[in-house]
Amino acid sequence: MIRDKVAIIGMGCSKFGERWDVGFEDLALEAFNEALDDASIELKDIQAAWLATCFDEVMCGKSALPIANALKLPFIPVTRVENFCASGSEALRGAVYAVASGACDVALAIGVEKLKDTGYGGLPEFGTVMGTKNRLIFPNVTAPGAFAMLATRYFSEYGLSPEKGKEILARISVKSHHNGAMNPKAHLRREVTVEDVLKAPIIAWPLGLYDCCGVSDGAAAAIVVRAENAKEYREDPIYVKSMQISATPGEELLYKWDGVHVETTVRAAEKAYKEAGIENPRKEIDLLEVHDCFSITELVTYEDLGISPRGEAWKDVENGFFELDGEVPCQTDGGLKCFGHPIGASGIRMAYEIYKQLQGKAGKRQVEDPRIGLTHNLGGFPAMSVAAICIFGIK
Amino acid sequence: MIRDKVAIIGMGCSKFGERWDVGFEDLALEAFNEALDDASIELKDIQAAWLATCFDEVMCGKSALPIANALKLPFIPVTRVENFCASGSEALRGAVYAVASGACDVALAIGVEKLKDTGYGGLPEFGTVMGTKNRLIFPNVTAPGAFAMLATRYFSEYGLSPEKGKEILARISVKSHHNGAMNPKAHLRREVTVEDVLKAPIIAWPLGLYDCCGVSDGAAAAIVVRAENAKEYREDPIYVKSMQISATPGEELLYKWDGVHVETTVRAAEKAYKEAGIENPRKEIDLLEVHDCFSITELVTYEDLGISPRGEAWKDVENGFFELDGEVPCQTDGGLKCFGHPIGASGIRMAYEIYKQLQGKAGKRQVEDPRIGLTHNLGGFPAMSVAAICIFGIK
Repeated sequence: MIRDKVAIIGMGCSKFGERWDVGFEDLALEAFNEALDDASIELKDIQAAWLATCFDEVMCGKSALPIANALKLPFIPVTRVENFCASGSEALRGAVYAVASGACDVALAIGVEKLKDTGYGGLPEFGTVMGTKNRLIFPNVTAPGAFAMLATRYFSEYGLSPEKGKEILARISVKSHHNGAMNPKAHLRREVTVEDVLKAPIIAWPLGLYDCCGVSDGAAAAIVVRAENAKEYREDPIYVKSMQISATPGEELLYKWDGVHVETTVRAAEKAYKEAGIENPRKEIDLLEVHDCFSITELVTYEDLGISPRGEAWKDVENGFFELDGEVPCQTDGGLKCFGHPIGASGIRMAYEIYKQLQGKAGKRQVEDPRIGLTHNLGGFPAMSVAAICIFGIK
Repeated sequence: MIRDKVAIIGMGCSKFGERWDVGFEDLALEAFNEALDDASIELKDIQAAWLATCFDEVMCGKSALPIANALKLPFIPVTRVENFCASGSEALRGAVYAVASGACDVALAIGVEKLKDTGYGGLPEFGTVMGTKNRLIFPNVTAPGAFAMLATRYFSEYGLSPEKGKEILARISVKSHHNGAMNPKAHLRREVTVEDVLKAPIIAWPLGLYDCCGVSDGAAAAIVVRAENAKEYREDPIYVKSMQISATPGEELLYKWDGVHVETTVRAAEKAYKEAGIENPRKEIDLLEVHDCFSITELVTYEDLGISPRGEAWKDVENGFFELDGEVPCQTDGGLKCFGHPIGASGIRMAYEIYKQLQGKAGKRQVEDPRIGLTHNLGGFPAMSVAAICIFGIK
């Protein structure tokens, strides 16, 4: 149990997008310097750091050394974690455990990734690393292809016609674009209509261009201390209520999986609610940032998190349940849909939005008086994944 | 401070060597199953795991999922850490912090790497990833080349003739081969003479073939619990007295470095001794496992750890100070010299030897009544490195 042992006292988030103007070093510094300022601390106060970056071989080299160097961290421990698309949450977890254990008092978690100048997104990188070499998923199936199968199965299982299913997915993207359009840090800042989404080119049926998250560069950072020290740094620290991860042993699932849910999300959520003392997530959680790599991932996650009843998330979508003025706003910052998914940064970028919302500092996107927010960060494919869930709250 | 908060209750180590007979999955299982048996626990008792593996792109794929799958870990958190050659120590650190923080009660650290079937060791992999892409070291300098410069500088600084210097380095390798020859898990199990070492082909002057560690496949694993629970599992748990890491911001050093020491080792050691309550390491530490990627690294590390006075480690080597019957035996298992350096495994492999020695179970290599042992695990190059130091003890 780490409930209420640790608090976040500062966060930073770079502008996400096609950041041809900076290398990974300056991108990381953009998030780091904002976090230092926000926490009102200095470089020398950081005692240990965890870095998340996924594509070392095409980006900033192996180990945590390039980032230690970029941030000029002075001989402190700097550790690289990598757990595919959930890497960002892993960096935060490393920092949280370190301060909770008493190993240090002030720790940094930072995630950074540059995807635009690496050709990421095509088969050579993604298909090879994930598919062929891992031998665990479907060889040479792309990410859109794997998640598309979740969508066709969902439509079939719950009796949605292709047209109806496509429309539900479109509404999810429309909602995220609406929120992202108000966010100066988002990459894709424009409203789209259901019609726009439906007439976009198909990537992997039924997923069209607007059902897929963007490809961006970005960085995000968090500074954590033990909860009992948090008020020394600021009046409104945000507390870590729970942090749970579940990783699938793929083989166990492959032969009995129903194809309409992600088991690791379910397992991690069960543990997270127990740790945070949440009995009815639909009522008790005030806002969500989920891993909307594709619109269907978001739909299925509503159910996997126990926010929507199984098979009924699409009704909640129709009813505006997850919209900014709905009962449990989701992707209030625009989500992966508008930020893109610079792998190492995403988990911490999600936490950044929850942090700002809980402090009442989310500007035009502010949700009314939230007290509990959840992030869901998913790595891998539906049948073989690692799901990281963090719950944050005000005291 | 994590001193005495955590204990190791089980460890395992595969046979190291040219393991054409197994894939990375079976290699990991070899270490994992030994650790489970040693701790008298079952698979289901493991609540979280940290995996160290460095060369994902040529080995077992990204993320921790391939190992989670290989070990059949049941939906628990499994996290990959990578910090170059210090990755193994990072996995152990992740597990130690997790149990110390109370996030879980029983955690696994496992390191695995297959180098023989990946062509590792040549420039295409090592030179590219470390040199050119990192832009932090010397572009296109190999590891032997970088460490060789440490040796020529050492000879010059402390007035050793080339012949004398080569002979001192040779004695270090002879000592490690002597110990490794008695170790059934080592890769290179044969005695060598000073003459053998001196007449071996030069790799990067003054380093010859026998001054360089081997290239091997291997895996090692550790199971940790909170110290207060350790005696429920076994009579002779081994306690973690300290765990410190230092990572260099390279630029700070490059212009004022003397070239005869590794600053991160010095920094990490200072903190580690403070945490463990050690005032005189030369007297209080009973045995060492250091990162002898090259014989010169071991020589310099004796001084960086404060075991030998600056500039005088070579005299300790002459006097047999680090031999099996010396005052502070070093590389009692044969070290990287005889085990090779399957990157992710090495840090935990070092801990395995200390653990067995402290329990009095090191067979023919047993040191008399040791109470405190230290591991030193170095990633990167002398001017740009991450040094991990762990101190273990009986209560």
